Amino acid sequence: MKTKNVKAVLFDTFGTVVDWRGSITRMGEQIAKKKGIKDINWETFANAWRAGYKPGMAKVQSGERPWTSIDVIHRERLDQILIDFGIAKMFTEKDKIDLTLFWHRLDPWPDSLPGLLRLKQLYLIGPLSNGSLPLLSSMAKRAGIPWDFILSSDTFKAYKPDIKIYQGSIELLGLKPGEVMMAAAHNDDLKAARSAGMVTAYVNRPYEYGPGQSKDIEATEDWEIITDNIIGIADAMGSFQNG
Amino acid sequence: MKTKNVKAVLFDTFGTVVDWRGSITRMGEQIAKKKGIKDINWETFANAWRAGYKPGMAKVQSGERPWTSIDVIHRERLDQILIDFGIAKMFTEKDKIDLTLFWHRLDPWPDSLPGLLRLKQLYLIGPLSNGSLPLLSSMAKRAGIPWDFILSSDTFKAYKPDIKIYQGSIELLGLKPGEVMMAAAHNDDLKAARSAGMVTAYVNRPYEYGPGQSKDIEATEDWEIITDNIIGIADAMGSFQNG
Repeated sequence: MKTKNVKAVLFDTFGTVVDWRGSITRMGEQIAKKKGIKDINWETFANAWRAGYKPGMAKVQSGERPWTSIDVIHRERLDQILIDFGIAKMFTEKDKIDLTLFWHRLDPWPDSLPGLLRLKQLYLIGPLSNGSLPLLSSMAKRAGIPWDFILSSDTFKAYKPDIKIYQGSIELLGLKPGEVMMAAAHNDDLKAARSAGMVTAYVNRPYEYGPGQSKDIEATEDWEIITDNIIGIADAMGSFQNG
Repeated sequence: MKTKNVKAVLFDTFGTVVDWRGSITRMGEQIAKKKGIKDINWETFANAWRAGYKPGMAKVQSGERPWTSIDVIHRERLDQILIDFGIAKMFTEKDKIDLTLFWHRLDPWPDSLPGLLRLKQLYLIGPLSNGSLPLLSSMAKRAGIPWDFILSSDTFKAYKPDIKIYQGSIELLGLKPGEVMMAAAHNDDLKAARSAGMVTAYVNRPYEYGPGQSKDIEATEDWEIITDNIIGIADAMGSFQNG
């Protein structure tokens, strides 16, 4: 098995380890209650916020814009959707700074911590995420995600699926490509990881974007592990280790 | 107090958080017993190994040599001192790889974990070390050092006290210089951190190199915190926070 040489397992974070949609929805509903805001569907708001993610990164990836952290991209998109939803005037600058930090406070899926704690016993584990270092470290601290290290887009000044971020991670870890596993709920992330020589694990999260999700509802290639959650990776890796 | 704005505390690792001399001595004595090697003073060996550290980094810092990880510098120095101590023939290549990993298995000083666990409740904490990412993450994993993130020389392809590594850390953390504290047992490390605008904490480790240590036996400037151990930093920061 290709998985037998793995020494470190890297995780996509948004969608794979944490439930951004549910978390943003819950935090939005709390804020709305405090502010007396009604008639906003916060799940729609969460998805609208997330919809600014790829276009925001694309400008950086294309070179149209110099390196820009995901925190800035989150904030810019927030400013836009607060207008779109007609609630911009309800929020002060201080509020908006705090709203942007919602992304630092995302809750893990229920299987994430149990799976990661098991994997941590056998492997070095860390995120390899388009999040920033402050985002990923604050999120892990709040939720108890037991990373051994954090690899973020700003470490490499590149966004996935730029091949540089996978190659840079392998190099920083001092490992061979086949000793590093990438785990993600997104086929394009795994495709790039595989092209860098990494071993791949697909975690199926067909409700990441809600019931209407049309992409990444199943594995589109023969990833080394295909499973429904992070406990499934631990099960698969555990048996390979013992077998 | 300058310390009141601090949000993240970065730690020098070798000597400040972990006792490299005692650890290498103990591991050397164990190996010697297995191999039946006598008449080697392993504390002298540890100090001889460490003596290759600054000259090894200096070649990289001066540009004489391209970026070279501390793991490579440790291995090159090992090869030399095994010859100097007349025991090179006792070790296979596999042995030498394992000996080099001694530096991934250093034990913390007794105050390190208690102090860090307290500081972690109030601040983001991480090493800012000339160690490599694999070295620092393996060391933390083995010893239970509760870092929120790891900042290593290879993240920045620079060795302390190069100002780039301090500035790069501040930028990656998304903080202002005065929001980051550098804690170290070495005055030159703090001098560089201060020149980058960081707040400083001096941890006095006058026996890091043994009873004959002549440098860093006391604070040579008015660092914001001057203390004998990491619990002392937690005491100082705790009261500042509450006061």
